[in-house]
Amino acid sequence: MKPRVLIIMGSDSDLPVMEEAASFLDRFGIPYRMTVASAHRTPERTMRIVRDAEKQGVEVIIAGAGMAAHLPGVIASHTILPVIGVPMDASPLNGLDALLSIVQMPPGIPVATVSIGKAGSRNAAILAAQIIGIKDPGIAGKLRTHRAEMAKEVEARADRITKKP
Amino acid sequence: MKPRVLIIMGSDSDLPVMEEAASFLDRFGIPYRMTVASAHRTPERTMRIVRDAEKQGVEVIIAGAGMAAHLPGVIASHTILPVIGVPMDASPLNGLDALLSIVQMPPGIPVATVSIGKAGSRNAAILAAQIIGIKDPGIAGKLRTHRAEMAKEVEARADRITKKP
Amino acid sequence: MKPRVLIIMGSDSDLPVMEEAASFLDRFGIPYRMTVASAHRTPERTMRIVRDAEKQGVEVIIAGAGMAAHLPGVIASHTILPVIGVPMDASPLNGLDALLSIVQMPPGIPVATVSIGKAGSRNAAILAAQIIGIKDPGIAGKLRTHRAEMAKEVEARADRITKKP
Amino acid sequence: MKPRVLIIMGSDSDLPVMEEAASFLDRFGIPYRMTVASAHRTPERTMRIVRDAEKQGVEVIIAGAGMAAHLPGVIASHTILPVIGVPMDASPLNGLDALLSIVQMPPGIPVATVSIGKAGSRNAAILAAQIIGIKDPGIAGKLRTHRAEMAKEVEARADRITKKP
Amino acid sequence: MKPRVLIIMGSDSDLPVMEEAASFLDRFGIPYRMTVASAHRTPERTMRIVRDAEKQGVEVIIAGAGMAAHLPGVIASHTILPVIGVPMDASPLNGLDALLSIVQMPPGIPVATVSIGKAGSRNAAILAAQIIGIKDPGIAGKLRTHRAEMAKEVEARADRITKKP
Amino acid sequence: MKPRVLIIMGSDSDLPVMEEAASFLDRFGIPYRMTVASAHRTPERTMRIVRDAEKQGVEVIIAGAGMAAHLPGVIASHTILPVIGVPMDASPLNGLDALLSIVQMPPGIPVATVSIGKAGSRNAAILAAQIIGIKDPGIAGKLRTHRAEMAKEVEARADRITKKP
Amino acid sequence: MKPRVLIIMGSDSDLPVMEEAASFLDRFGIPYRMTVASAHRTPERTMRIVRDAEKQGVEVIIAGAGMAAHLPGVIASHTILPVIGVPMDASPLNGLDALLSIVQMPPGIPVATVSIGKAGSRNAAILAAQIIGIKDPGIAGKLRTHRAEMAKEVEARADRITKKP
Amino acid sequence: MKPRVLIIMGSDSDLPVMEEAASFLDRFGIPYRMTVASAHRTPERTMRIVRDAEKQGVEVIIAGAGMAAHLPGVIASHTILPVIGVPMDASPLNGLDALLSIVQMPPGIPVATVSIGKAGSRNAAILAAQIIGIKDPGIAGKLRTHRAEMAKEVEARADRITKKP
Repeated sequence: MKPRVLIIMGSDSDLPVMEEAASFLDRFGIPYRMTVASAHRTPERTMRIVRDAEKQGVEVIIAGAGMAAHLPGVIASHTILPVIGVPMDASPLNGLDALLSIVQMPPGIPVATVSIGKAGSRNAAILAAQIIGIKDPGIAGKLRTHRAEMAKEVEARADRITKKP
Repeated sequence: MKPRVLIIMGSDSDLPVMEEAASFLDRFGIPYRMTVASAHRTPERTMRIVRDAEKQGVEVIIAGAGMAAHLPGVIASHTILPVIGVPMDASPLNGLDALLSIVQMPPGIPVATVSIGKAGSRNAAILAAQIIGIKDPGIAGKLRTHRAEMAKEVEARADRITKKP
Repeated sequence: MKPRVLIIMGSDSDLPVMEEAASFLDRFGIPYRMTVASAHRTPERTMRIVRDAEKQGVEVIIAGAGMAAHLPGVIASHTILPVIGVPMDASPLNGLDALLSIVQMPPGIPVATVSIGKAGSRNAAILAAQIIGIKDPGIAGKLRTHRAEMAKEVEARADRITKKP
Repeated sequence: MKPRVLIIMGSDSDLPVMEEAASFLDRFGIPYRMTVASAHRTPERTMRIVRDAEKQGVEVIIAGAGMAAHLPGVIASHTILPVIGVPMDASPLNGLDALLSIVQMPPGIPVATVSIGKAGSRNAAILAAQIIGIKDPGIAGKLRTHRAEMAKEVEARADRITKKP
Repeated sequence: MKPRVLIIMGSDSDLPVMEEAASFLDRFGIPYRMTVASAHRTPERTMRIVRDAEKQGVEVIIAGAGMAAHLPGVIASHTILPVIGVPMDASPLNGLDALLSIVQMPPGIPVATVSIGKAGSRNAAILAAQIIGIKDPGIAGKLRTHRAEMAKEVEARADRITKKP
Repeated sequence: MKPRVLIIMGSDSDLPVMEEAASFLDRFGIPYRMTVASAHRTPERTMRIVRDAEKQGVEVIIAGAGMAAHLPGVIASHTILPVIGVPMDASPLNGLDALLSIVQMPPGIPVATVSIGKAGSRNAAILAAQIIGIKDPGIAGKLRTHRAEMAKEVEARADRITKKP
Repeated sequence: MKPRVLIIMGSDSDLPVMEEAASFLDRFGIPYRMTVASAHRTPERTMRIVRDAEKQGVEVIIAGAGMAAHLPGVIASHTILPVIGVPMDASPLNGLDALLSIVQMPPGIPVATVSIGKAGSRNAAILAAQIIGIKDPGIAGKLRTHRAEMAKEVEARADRITKKP
Repeated sequence: MKPRVLIIMGSDSDLPVMEEAASFLDRFGIPYRMTVASAHRTPERTMRIVRDAEKQGVEVIIAGAGMAAHLPGVIASHTILPVIGVPMDASPLNGLDALLSIVQMPPGIPVATVSIGKAGSRNAAILAAQIIGIKDPGIAGKLRTHRAEMAKEVEARADRITKKP
């Protein structure tokens, strides 16, 4: 099966966070490739992976990185595919450094930034599904189901804790 | 022509910034609808506009808001279309309040956040085009042309200022 | 007994913090209802609970949420009851994201914001009692008693640690 | 007419911001007293004004202050009336100092904090009206009217700027 | 012996930090009184302690507080003795709230602010000794000895870790 | 007349801010010397001025600096006189850089830090007077007079703006 | 003359700031090339310029960029020459975004970061001279002269403003 | 062997972080001296060590410090050798205080600042090697080898985690 999403992270230490994205793509039945490439330590590898992804028909790229998190922006500079950036909480600055390094892209090359850490990783997968969903009604349907399930889950949890006077 | 993008802003004072998005959608030949709706002052109107947009076949929503900028997240809670959030610099806190209010969405409902202010507004339009580009080769082609033009423009400007010893 | 306060939180993981508010309402003998509703995952449920609360005669709403904490503002947009917002420390940003998302409401729809986390949760209950106290002398009396007790407690603790040369 | 709200500010330089609160109280027909008292330069005066306010039947206190903005908290320590704090943008730190000094009250003495500057000043008046509205149906009615007017105003502005493709 | 310094803290939970100040005053042989008073929960007690301190001949006041740390400023408003403020790291915001609440005093009433937490507590004692040292040559002498000891200690530690190629 | 206070600033561009301190020392009749010395560009000059000050009987040093504001700390490392640090708002970071560089002194060498900019400059002079006041009853008396005048001034201003219903 | 330093900036709008670096290199008689290349809009051009610079014998690269300032890090990933990064104050966030994006480089690829804006641009030139100075005694000599001149200038300015009692 | 690099830290508690720099200098075969000196507690020692280093032919100085981290700037004021500053995460403010105290040097005296903590310590060593590499082809060669090894390591790790659909 050809990958529709490329998940790429700046360091293998980001794996526990980025697996959240992978597990949600699995849930939506969206095939993906997941790998590591450093914007700084392996710039050529990064470029090659992005170009290969474009050729293989990948539709969305999810890139997670911490500190001066250049990976999502560097990837975005090599492709016109939508790039989703996940800031890692990987330095004493609590991910604020990664957030600003990813979201504050100068005019011309956007990165679709989501929240810091695991919440953002999950949201990156859902956003990728939403993007694919504009051309693939099957994925759109799964997103609607997921929304309904989330709502039910909230209600179930609410029932357990609701206190009335 | 049916709109493919909905541009929505929390206040008409955001118009000068959001027109940057509109002008870039014009440049890519992407039809859009642009309007105002406040997440807080007109919650019903916001919901109605989002639902109408879905019915009319809108593919991407761009939402700009400042301060405790809930508009993009509130819109995202009513649709499975990809929602792009543009933080406004509309309070003494320089847009940091809007940025965190937009990007730090809890798991389940993502907002694709771009940079603060005019740069972000332009990038929102480009990101919308990239998203549409995964199903519309014509738009993808225009994005590639735009990239090439940007590169040329940088080079032209570089020529004017380059100093050699 | 009809609830006078509605305690609502964005996620059941906020329960340990929000129980501080509940325990202080118990202390003041103020009946309350406590439940969960997500501004983003269950927008309709949120709206319904707020409207039901208004009908049941609830006088004050306490809403706790973390990250891009839209719940208090979204609730405030659906009611003219006073809404007290409690920012949760639920992301790597230490609750600064929740604080700004709650307090920086645009003109027209206020949220009465208190401190981050458990201190804020307790203060939300006290503030709710103060608001009810302007019409209910019994509650006002209990607040005065509580103030006196707090002062005594500080003095008792001071006695234990006071060192004189 | 007896004042129902006390507006108090730390310095007369805060007047242009605090007049926004006054003008909204006028709009709701809520009588108020407006004065200046510094938590630091006139601690006794501050205490006296607060106690007089309680005796005169004031129901809500709005306190605006900048920098290390202690005024709202100091007032709250002398009364069980609800105190609304408006952080001023009055130092190079853009009001972040005032916001944290007002909102981060320790457990026991809450201050209902609103947004920084003029937006917060207006919201303080609306919040005061909401608090009074829980005992005064006339004020509640005016708040509902104000909400409806705000919504209409947003729609009127939206009409002027809406662009369709 | 009459106290020359008053150490006062907003909560007995600040004791482990403020004991650092006490232990350094002991080291310089400066008699002190140490107690607890809350600017908000016990405003009258705070005032009374400050006035008693003035009467007893206290020369410097050290006040430690966290969150919206009003204690040092409130004390400074009741005395013309120099007040040293120690910001506590007592909330999710890492003491930034306490630092800004203490240091950003408006013109007229200064607080001599030192670093956050234990380092600041020790420095508060040294600063108090420096202030007393301008009238008491004995204390000035002890400060010079302390400086020399610190320098020796750094050199001793340096010797243990110095590596030469 | 021998100077009792040394006012020293990192750059002559700090003069308009530091003159506020000078003018308040004039008001209290405290003789001072005011000069410029850069911790980085003229380290020897800085050291020499500090040592001369000690010899001339200076009792308090006020040091203003911006950016990575090392001047107050460097001065403090060469003297046991109390050093008051005034953070300048002299970079795009609004004085936060100067504030942290001055206040966060490591254990052993305190700097008595006041608020950023002009407010801090005035407060530095008042704090210097308070320190001198512990040995000089004349200065203490002037401080009490100043307090009373400030209170009267606040009351006069309050009269002009007070509005009653 | 062959350039020893390459000055590169992300946008021609950075020119007024980066000319400060150029003017200081002129002062030290260090030949340089100055040009524009965007890490994102012209990634290939950036790479080519860096490689050409290495071939031409450039010894130090100065790179200025704003917002999510990736240019210095991207350049550093393509060369083992020392890269000096100058953060621009080019967004509502006052250059904090650029500072963190430049300085927080992950382990393996350093960028020598200097202060935000014009001060940093000048310091970048001086740092480049210091680096070249370790192999070129002529440049080292000019740096010593510059230091002496700075000290004299501070003293001259000090003379103009020094006030003695 | 004569040291080419001086590693200096403000406190022996910084040793675990600064040993990362030492271990990378070892890896590149660059001889170094490592010691402790406090800008504040031992200003004379600091100056002496810097002057000795210059005389012994040291080419680069690496200085690590936390809190109001003056050490790198103070060292830079006493030498024209390039000084690399490593901000320590040694206070509740997560190293932001140290970062701003090191990087925001005023015009005239640069400090080459690297990232906070261990990542920065390693990068300081690599940057020192890059600086020495402009005159020593052997070191430049080792840097190229190190780059290639880093790239291989990333690829090896990538192989272990890469998932294809």
